[in-house]
Amino acid sequence: MVGGGFGGVQAVRKLRRAPVDVTLVDRRNFSLFQPLVYQVATGALSPGEVASPLRGIFKRSSNVHVLLGEVTGFDLENRRVLVDGMPDDGGPRELPYDSLIVAAGSGYSYFGHDEWSGLAPDVKSLESALEVRRRILSAFEAAESEPDPGRRASWLTFVVVGAGPTGVELAGQIGEIARDTLRRDFRSIDTRSARILLVEMADRVLPLFPPGLSRSAARALEKLGVTPLTEHRVVDIDDGSVTLTSAAGETQRVAARTVVWAAGVVASELAGRLADAAGVEVDRAGRVPVRPDLTLPGHPEVTALGDMALVHDAAGKPVPLPGLAPVAMQQGRYAGRAVRDRIRGRQPGPFHYRDKGNLATIGRAKAVADIKGLHLSGLFAWLTWLFVHLFYLIGFQNRLIVFIRWTISFVTRGRGERLISSGPPSTT
Amino acid sequence: MVGGGFGGVQAVRKLRRAPVDVTLVDRRNFSLFQPLVYQVATGALSPGEVASPLRGIFKRSSNVHVLLGEVTGFDLENRRVLVDGMPDDGGPRELPYDSLIVAAGSGYSYFGHDEWSGLAPDVKSLESALEVRRRILSAFEAAESEPDPGRRASWLTFVVVGAGPTGVELAGQIGEIARDTLRRDFRSIDTRSARILLVEMADRVLPLFPPGLSRSAARALEKLGVTPLTEHRVVDIDDGSVTLTSAAGETQRVAARTVVWAAGVVASELAGRLADAAGVEVDRAGRVPVRPDLTLPGHPEVTALGDMALVHDAAGKPVPLPGLAPVAMQQGRYAGRAVRDRIRGRQPGPFHYRDKGNLATIGRAKAVADIKGLHLSGLFAWLTWLFVHLFYLIGFQNRLIVFIRWTISFVTRGRGERLISSGPPSTT
Repeated sequence: MVGGGFGGVQAVRKLRRAPVDVTLVDRRNFSLFQPLVYQVATGALSPGEVASPLRGIFKRSSNVHVLLGEVTGFDLENRRVLVDGMPDDGGPRELPYDSLIVAAGSGYSYFGHDEWSGLAPDVKSLESALEVRRRILSAFEAAESEPDPGRRASWLTFVVVGAGPTGVELAGQIGEIARDTLRRDFRSIDTRSARILLVEMADRVLPLFPPGLSRSAARALEKLGVTPLTEHRVVDIDDGSVTLTSAAGETQRVAARTVVWAAGVVASELAGRLADAAGVEVDRAGRVPVRPDLTLPGHPEVTALGDMALVHDAAGKPVPLPGLAPVAMQQGRYAGRAVRDRIRGRQPGPFHYRDKGNLATIGRAKAVADIKGLHLSGLFAWLTWLFVHLFYLIGFQNRLIVFIRWTISFVTRGRGERLISSGPPSTT
Repeated sequence: MVGGGFGGVQAVRKLRRAPVDVTLVDRRNFSLFQPLVYQVATGALSPGEVASPLRGIFKRSSNVHVLLGEVTGFDLENRRVLVDGMPDDGGPRELPYDSLIVAAGSGYSYFGHDEWSGLAPDVKSLESALEVRRRILSAFEAAESEPDPGRRASWLTFVVVGAGPTGVELAGQIGEIARDTLRRDFRSIDTRSARILLVEMADRVLPLFPPGLSRSAARALEKLGVTPLTEHRVVDIDDGSVTLTSAAGETQRVAARTVVWAAGVVASELAGRLADAAGVEVDRAGRVPVRPDLTLPGHPEVTALGDMALVHDAAGKPVPLPGLAPVAMQQGRYAGRAVRDRIRGRQPGPFHYRDKGNLATIGRAKAVADIKGLHLSGLFAWLTWLFVHLFYLIGFQNRLIVFIRWTISFVTRGRGERLISSGPPSTT
């Protein structure tokens, strides 16, 4: 089992009591609750509250071995995974397997401009989320001690690229920080004058939601001081400005010191290595093609799932599935059950995704929900969002503490974790 | 006001309603609850729980300006503090003052071996505490995948240098991690076989406590698997071992991959700059001498306090005060009141330290307390420790969440924040 995200943890859970030895390999010693990482970037939650140690999750499962290491390749002929060990631990090693499940997830693509990654960090990993937090909070500090109005305005301009759920939620929270949390903290600046631009290529925010909910979300964002710039594309980023082009072909340069990236999902590079090893081609988003039972063509002992896999139906046509946690979790459970089935000599049926709905929160008591065709927005959608996220958080302690933090934030409009602390070294 | 630690925050609090403008300068945007930082290193608490944003503390005090910056020097003749601004904020600036209070705290000295700081990080700042956490947790991971018994033992050997309260509490917590928290997490190693050495130059642990309590503490430590090595000195550290000399002159080399430093307190270098500016000499621990009212000789408008100041009595004799939070807090309150008094034309009396006692915790339900000659050890001392620390934590949210974390840790013997995440880049 490679990858301890939503898919990997669910797959291993299904194998806990099976007569198999499971080795779970991950670069990190924790499973990250991806949909809430952006709240670390806004100081609403602390890193430990959105992450669970993998060894802790499986401490009572004696057939599960957790191995910290970086998977570097696959030898499908000899059924071996190549793993680079810990830094001081010598060279790579080969792990043999009978069944292999790979769920290595995805990252952001920067549209071929990898040089932007330092200028516009994402909120996908804890490290980059802490870097985003440092930049957001430092920007207000810099504005406070900046006498020049132009430069001050550029410190108070925040650009979020990508208006999917992560971009929308992040932009909304920056709006709340500026309008509520920090309002009385500064003496020279009015934090409410901050501009927050949400840049999206599509013609509306939350393009995967029904159009009516996109409109509700856009209205809620505007109330928080966020300006949605739909049908706009980022064409350049430098240290101090972002250049945008509209669908009409107009180009503008925005002076902004803080840019956060949440667009252009691309599969983990392990998808490419797995496809190479199996002699198949990845799609435009870098995903490896898998059969209806999630196995690799020609390799029924190898399963790929989650954001890094593109499922094909029995007729060989790709099945479009969103890159969301519920998909990865259902596929993980399916893959774990499939391994058990095959041991018992049964052939698993094809994977079917059960769409339970789609949620995004915009701010305090505001959210949109699309649940089996039922479109909700406002307080009830927000409460649904809240309890769904609490329910899927791993560990009683994290659930309790996140619930308390959200309750206190709701009442006080504050944010507990407003530390400017060094994350990874800044690359700008 | 320079420094937002225990002393600085208390001094500014006393000036909130006074007819003065207060500028609080600190390198960080938060006040750190130093006595609990080591719990970040052991994964018991998260960084935000032991830190409070300074702007948040003084958000309702419109006469208090918080300035993020590094103080680089003092011009006492012209009554100016030199401050280096934020990274992108241009050059240094000069802050004029009528009254100056400096409370810049202390660090560790490494006995002149600054090259050890990368090999043996401390638990004084949040960054180094996170680095210590990364090293402790990674050591168990490395031991799990290390086949050689000798190298495995060196990964499972932890050396804590200095048996003051911080060293004792940290060593006890590493013992608990090895014996309780991680016991069922690994498959190849028995984490209970970990060796934890607590190195101390004095002839007993907690040398500032009464000898009877030192004995109780040593017994409690041994029960947690900690070996106190009193009358031992560190003479060398390299990447993989620590060399110790005993008072009897015997030298031994211990193979250990994880070393944590908690010895040799030395005043902030701002004490030296302040002493130079005033034309006085610092003492061996780098502290600036101050008069009975905490002001600099010849400069009644300049106060220095906390770990960086050495108080002298009216006869000019140094008054030995411990380097503890209560001293800094009482001195901070005194200094704030003294500024108000001088505005009203009153001359403040000399500072008197009221010793309310001394506390150290060793592990789950174990602590020692020396309260006005009353010596306690065990559960009652531990409850006292618990409530005193909760009481002095800043902010309702931090108090509540730390209380919940401690309660859950007490019941489950677990630790919530077991993430191996990059802190600052490792220097080894």
